[in-house]
Amino acid sequence: MAEYDVLTIGNAIVDIIARCDDAFLQAEEVQKGGMTLIDAGRAEHLYGRMGPAIETSGGSAGNTVAGLVSLGGNGAYIGKVSNDQLGAIFAHDIRSLGVKFETQPLEGFPPTARCMVLVTPDGERSMSTYLGACVELGPEDIDAEIVASAKITYFEGYLWDPPRAKEAIVAAAKIAHDNGRKVAMTLSDSFCVHRYRAEFLDLMRQGTVDITFANEAEALALYETEDLDVALNGLAADSKAFAIVTRSEKGCVVVEGDKRIAVPALTVPHVVDTTGAGDLFASGFLRGHTLGLSHEKSARLGVAAAGHIIGQIGPRPQSPLEGLAEVKAAFVG
Amino acid sequence: MAEYDVLTIGNAIVDIIARCDDAFLQAEEVQKGGMTLIDAGRAEHLYGRMGPAIETSGGSAGNTVAGLVSLGGNGAYIGKVSNDQLGAIFAHDIRSLGVKFETQPLEGFPPTARCMVLVTPDGERSMSTYLGACVELGPEDIDAEIVASAKITYFEGYLWDPPRAKEAIVAAAKIAHDNGRKVAMTLSDSFCVHRYRAEFLDLMRQGTVDITFANEAEALALYETEDLDVALNGLAADSKAFAIVTRSEKGCVVVEGDKRIAVPALTVPHVVDTTGAGDLFASGFLRGHTLGLSHEKSARLGVAAAGHIIGQIGPRPQSPLEGLAEVKAAFVG
Repeated sequence: MAEYDVLTIGNAIVDIIARCDDAFLQAEEVQKGGMTLIDAGRAEHLYGRMGPAIETSGGSAGNTVAGLVSLGGNGAYIGKVSNDQLGAIFAHDIRSLGVKFETQPLEGFPPTARCMVLVTPDGERSMSTYLGACVELGPEDIDAEIVASAKITYFEGYLWDPPRAKEAIVAAAKIAHDNGRKVAMTLSDSFCVHRYRAEFLDLMRQGTVDITFANEAEALALYETEDLDVALNGLAADSKAFAIVTRSEKGCVVVEGDKRIAVPALTVPHVVDTTGAGDLFASGFLRGHTLGLSHEKSARLGVAAAGHIIGQIGPRPQSPLEGLAEVKAAFVG
Repeated sequence: MAEYDVLTIGNAIVDIIARCDDAFLQAEEVQKGGMTLIDAGRAEHLYGRMGPAIETSGGSAGNTVAGLVSLGGNGAYIGKVSNDQLGAIFAHDIRSLGVKFETQPLEGFPPTARCMVLVTPDGERSMSTYLGACVELGPEDIDAEIVASAKITYFEGYLWDPPRAKEAIVAAAKIAHDNGRKVAMTLSDSFCVHRYRAEFLDLMRQGTVDITFANEAEALALYETEDLDVALNGLAADSKAFAIVTRSEKGCVVVEGDKRIAVPALTVPHVVDTTGAGDLFASGFLRGHTLGLSHEKSARLGVAAAGHIIGQIGPRPQSPLEGLAEVKAAFVG
């Protein structure tokens, strides 16, 4: 049986990426910088209005495992597509990287999920997601052998949106812990935290989750505060192992008990598209952590991967990250 | 009734673009720099082996009309997709630019065509095309009103590959000429010229085609020569109106009777992906020509559009070409 560094579980989504101006976001009432869930009718409306796009596999946890493998790690993925052309694209892209992906696709309706990613001239992305086949993910999709053999099982807070995925996560977390493995979560999005605050805190306090990834807005939302220190102290108290808070151009902070380990961001000369920044930070951190590196080195690796991805279109690295100078420097430094 | 600057007719294809090294092309016996037609089985095999990809609407004539509209022109397109997800992507992308596209999609099998574009580190692209629904394009798909109202009807030599598209072209050319319009053709690919040399020469010599676009390799292939002057003289003799030969980093030559108008290429600092270079040259030239500009200015506009497209991934401009400095300079200069 293979051993995996990281298994990620998430909404399996194809991104439809187009450029637009701020006026378009306003006219179409798209919330800038956020992720909004939309139904099939709204998806059709918005797609009909938006400009020409490129398609690429996405999904937060899918991007994270793609980045992990691109950094030399060994990864597996669980997520639900439908048996359609977009589902075939998603499956091809993740498998072609060497990621183990065997989740049974849904037969027929609803189709594979898609996220319309609108990128404004400032590089900010605003996401409208039609969950499609993701609503069918359930405990029956959890492959116990893979969970048992993965050092870390990592999942998205976004999985609290579809109806039965949370049951899948609770089942997976039990298998992981029964096998001496760790469980990690990303809070995904501050609006997602507003939707599921109590449940996310329970996951941490009850020890279902060992490691929590959040950006600053998500951490503040989790503790309903505007004071970052309050949020960091909350994360320190509630984390079974530790938490990592990313802060865009301010870098990140690892929070473990009384320790606060801050790492600066890289200077990115030209931000093209911020899609995938948080996802790729997690790739880098998890790669370092599963190699047994210090939190500081792991965070540097996260910062390097995130810095790279915002300099290109789309959330998946277009070429291997392993050879990049900033990645090599992070391994050393 | 709207008047169109250019109607383009071509194989309606979604590009699946991935990076690879030269060893992969050799191992999979993909002909470097060319376009090879493949069947469904070979498409499945190759897709299964190639790396993660991005998807974008493509097809030579589709790219040309996208570029034309991006330069401020008024365009229409005829091409055959299937009623599937990739077909919906193709239709969305071209319509969202403002291109008139009303060709009836095929119901059911075969699916929308796709072209696997493998980009090597030198920026060269090697294409493997599964024609899918394109094989169903026929004379019944020609909208006579649109042809009659387009200053130029432009088509791909690639249309000689599917069985009935050439009938559609002959029908469209007759409508165009009956309405005092012009017909243009691109020779598409030197291997395509080898397949249909006699027919392409007949199209020119019988006056079905007024204007011919070719790159150097295609022009040489058409006259089975290694001497460019022989090819240029052949084009001059056989063209009802004129011909344009593109020469990559050597720019291009417009050939009209005894005249030879050479225009240099732009220096492109970093060639990312040569996909679409010829298609976008045609966009620029046709935009200039339908504005009534000189051949030289039209060629400069073609060179500017081509130079821009090889600096990005994919064959369709990711943002409007009209505002680019090199495009503005070509309009002036």
